[in-house]
Amino acid sequence: MAVGLKGPPKLLPVAGIRVGTTAGAVKYPGRDDIALFEIASGASTGAVFTRNAFCAAPVEVARSHLARAMPRYLLVNSGNANAGTGESGLEDAVACCDAVAGLGECAAHRVLPFSTGVIGEPLPVSRITAALPAAFESLTSSGWLAGARAIMTTDTVPKGESVQVTTSSGVHTITGIVKGSGMIRPDMATLLAFVATDAPLDAESVRDSLTSAVDKSFNRITVDGDTSTNDACALVATGLCPGREAVSLGLADRDTFTEALTRLMTTLAQSCVRDAEGATKFITVRVEQGRDAHECLLVAYAVAHSPLVKTAMYACDPNWGRILAAVGRAGVENFDISAVHVYLDEVCIVESGARAADYREEQGQGVLGRGEITVRIVLGRGTHDETVWTSDLSNEYVRINSEYRS
Amino acid sequence: MAVGLKGPPKLLPVAGIRVGTTAGAVKYPGRDDIALFEIASGASTGAVFTRNAFCAAPVEVARSHLARAMPRYLLVNSGNANAGTGESGLEDAVACCDAVAGLGECAAHRVLPFSTGVIGEPLPVSRITAALPAAFESLTSSGWLAGARAIMTTDTVPKGESVQVTTSSGVHTITGIVKGSGMIRPDMATLLAFVATDAPLDAESVRDSLTSAVDKSFNRITVDGDTSTNDACALVATGLCPGREAVSLGLADRDTFTEALTRLMTTLAQSCVRDAEGATKFITVRVEQGRDAHECLLVAYAVAHSPLVKTAMYACDPNWGRILAAVGRAGVENFDISAVHVYLDEVCIVESGARAADYREEQGQGVLGRGEITVRIVLGRGTHDETVWTSDLSNEYVRINSEYRS
Repeated sequence: MAVGLKGPPKLLPVAGIRVGTTAGAVKYPGRDDIALFEIASGASTGAVFTRNAFCAAPVEVARSHLARAMPRYLLVNSGNANAGTGESGLEDAVACCDAVAGLGECAAHRVLPFSTGVIGEPLPVSRITAALPAAFESLTSSGWLAGARAIMTTDTVPKGESVQVTTSSGVHTITGIVKGSGMIRPDMATLLAFVATDAPLDAESVRDSLTSAVDKSFNRITVDGDTSTNDACALVATGLCPGREAVSLGLADRDTFTEALTRLMTTLAQSCVRDAEGATKFITVRVEQGRDAHECLLVAYAVAHSPLVKTAMYACDPNWGRILAAVGRAGVENFDISAVHVYLDEVCIVESGARAADYREEQGQGVLGRGEITVRIVLGRGTHDETVWTSDLSNEYVRINSEYRS
Repeated sequence: MAVGLKGPPKLLPVAGIRVGTTAGAVKYPGRDDIALFEIASGASTGAVFTRNAFCAAPVEVARSHLARAMPRYLLVNSGNANAGTGESGLEDAVACCDAVAGLGECAAHRVLPFSTGVIGEPLPVSRITAALPAAFESLTSSGWLAGARAIMTTDTVPKGESVQVTTSSGVHTITGIVKGSGMIRPDMATLLAFVATDAPLDAESVRDSLTSAVDKSFNRITVDGDTSTNDACALVATGLCPGREAVSLGLADRDTFTEALTRLMTTLAQSCVRDAEGATKFITVRVEQGRDAHECLLVAYAVAHSPLVKTAMYACDPNWGRILAAVGRAGVENFDISAVHVYLDEVCIVESGARAADYREEQGQGVLGRGEITVRIVLGRGTHDETVWTSDLSNEYVRINSEYRS
C-alpha cells in the first residue's frame, strides 16, 4: 500500500561504516532480523530517543552507554521490542552488548542496542548471540540495503536514502535507513533510523545537526498521534571523507551539512508516512501566516490527527467543514476563523472562514482522487509557517491494528 | 450498535415546559426534525456552548440572545447545522427566531436557536418557518420523548433521562434529552442537550449548577477527540415545583440539586458514548493516585484517544503494551512508569510498570469479551482521581465516517 515509494532505494557506502545482517529467528523465520553497524574508531555518534516515559530496555541501555563513550557498534534486532520487560529486559540488552563486545573486541559500553517488535515478551538473547558471528562475517560497506531489510517489521518496503553534499572540506556522503510504518504502533512499528556520513564533525556538532534535522523531519510526521517505546535516531560522522583531513567542519559548512541532513531525514520520515499502515494517501498539511511556529503546529496537528479529516480523505470526500472544525478546536488564542482560507492543492475550498464562493464539489473531489495532496491552511494573522505530513485513515488501518497479535 | 442502551427512556413532564415537534423536511423526509420548547414566564435558563472557534450561526445567535433576556422558546432543528454559512447563516438563524417570536408573541431575542446536521449548506428557512405552526399546535408537557426523536441525526436511539431529587423546597423533577453519537462528527453528530427542572433556581445558580455538572459529565466523554461546531447544553429552571413558592434554593439544597443534575447529565453523556458510531464497547477509563486532576485527565485522555488502544479493545486484545505506551506519552512531569499498575476490571495486567507476574492472557481476553469495561490506571504518586468514558474504534466507525456524504 506504500504511497509513491519506488523501492529499493540506491544507498551509497559511507567510509568507516560496515553493515552486517543475519537471521536470528527472533520472531520471523527465514529472513534477516539482526543488523550490526561497525563504526570506525574516531567517529562521533549522537542519538535521540523516544520521549515516552514508558521506554524500552534497549533505549535505557543505549542512552547510558552513549553517555560514557563513542560507540563502535550498533546492534539492531527486529521482532521483539524488549519493552515492558523490567529488570530482566535490561540484563538481556546488556547481554547482547557483551556478546558483540566480545566478538568485536571493545568494551561493552561501546555497543548501543536497538530493538523493535512486540512488547512484553522476553528477548531471545541466546538466539541473538548465537547469530552474531554470522553478522560479523557479513560486515560490508555495501550492506546498507540489507540492513534496511533486516530492521523491517510491518514495513512493506525497505526504506533508505543517500545524498551527497559539497562543503569546503570536500564532497560528503550521507546515507540513512529507517524502519517504521508511520510511528503508529508502539508495540510493533517503532521508528528506528540510522544515518551515517563521512563528513568530519565533532560530537557536539553531530548532536546539534541531528537535533535540528530531527525536529524538522521525524518530529513533523504523524499517523495517529501515538508514539513508541523504542523510537530512536542515530547519526554517525566518521570524518573519513576521501582525500581530506578529518578536521571538524566550520560553522558555514556545518549549516550546509545540516541542510542536506535535514533533506535526507525528511525523505526518510516521509517514507514512513508513505508506508503507513493502511495508507492510501500521502498528505502534506501546511499552515501559513500564523503568529508563531507554535500556533502553526497546533493547527497542523489538529488537522493531521483528526480521524474525521483522515476518514474523509480516505473517502475522497472534500469535507471542508471537518477541516475547519479541526482548525477551530486547535486552541489558537484569540482566533478569528473568518480570516482563514483553506486550499486542497490548487483549489480554494474555504474563503474567509466559509465555503469559497466559486468552489464546486467536483473540484475538491478531483484533488482528492490524487495519491498525494497538500492541505494548505492560511491563518491570515502572521508570517510564520509550518508543515507536517500524515496519511489518511482507512478500514485497513483498523484491520491491521485490531488483528495484529490475534 | 448502541451498547447497553434499552430504549426508549421514560421521561417525566416538568411543570412549566411544553415540547412540540413536527416534520419540516429540513433533510430527512417523513420524520419529525423540529423540536420547540416553550418555557414558562419567570424561568431561569443557562447554556454552555462549544469552545470551537469555528462555531455555527445558531450558537452565535443563541449566545447573544441569552445575554439579553431569559428565553421563552428554544427552537431546534436536525438535518442542517447552519455552520460555515457566514453572514447569511446568521440572518437565517435570526429569521427562524423571528418566526417563533411572531407565533409565540414574544421578542425575537427571547428565542434561542439550535441546529445540528450537515455543515455548509444553507438552512432551509422557509420550510422550517412553514412547519412552525404545527410545532406550536403539538406543544405538550409530555412531548419530551418526541423531542428526543426529533433532534436525532445519526443517533440510533432516542436518548433521555428523568430523575427526582428532594430538597427542603420539595421534590423536584429533572428531565433531559440529548442527541449526539459521541461528539465524534463535527458535521453531523453535534452534541445537543436540553435539561429542565421545576426546582426554583435563580439565573446565577442555574449557571453554576450547569457548569459544574457539564464539567463532570459532557466534558468527560470522548470518542475521537473531535469537537463540534454546534455543541450546546441548556438548563432551564422553571421554579414551578408543585405546592411550593418559587424561592431560589439555598446553598445546601443547591448542592443536592447539582449532585442530582450531575448524575442525570452523566447518564446522558454516557448514552452518547454508548451510541457512538461503530461502538461495540463502553469503556470507562479511571485514573487513580495522581498528583492533581490535571495529570489524571492527561493520562485518561491519552488512553481514551489512542487509536491503538481503541482498536485493541475492539479486537478483544488485552494489549497492555499499548495502554502503557499511551500512559507514558501523556505528558505527566517527572513520571516514573515503574510505579504504575493497570487493571482491566478485576484483572491486574500491569504491575510496577511491567506485565503482572501472575497475569495470563486468557484473563484479559475474558474481560474484553464484555460489553462494558473499566480500564483502571493507578499512578501511585498522589491522591487524586478522574474518570472519562469512551468507546472502541471499529471498522464500522471508518465506514460510517468515510461513507457519509457520498
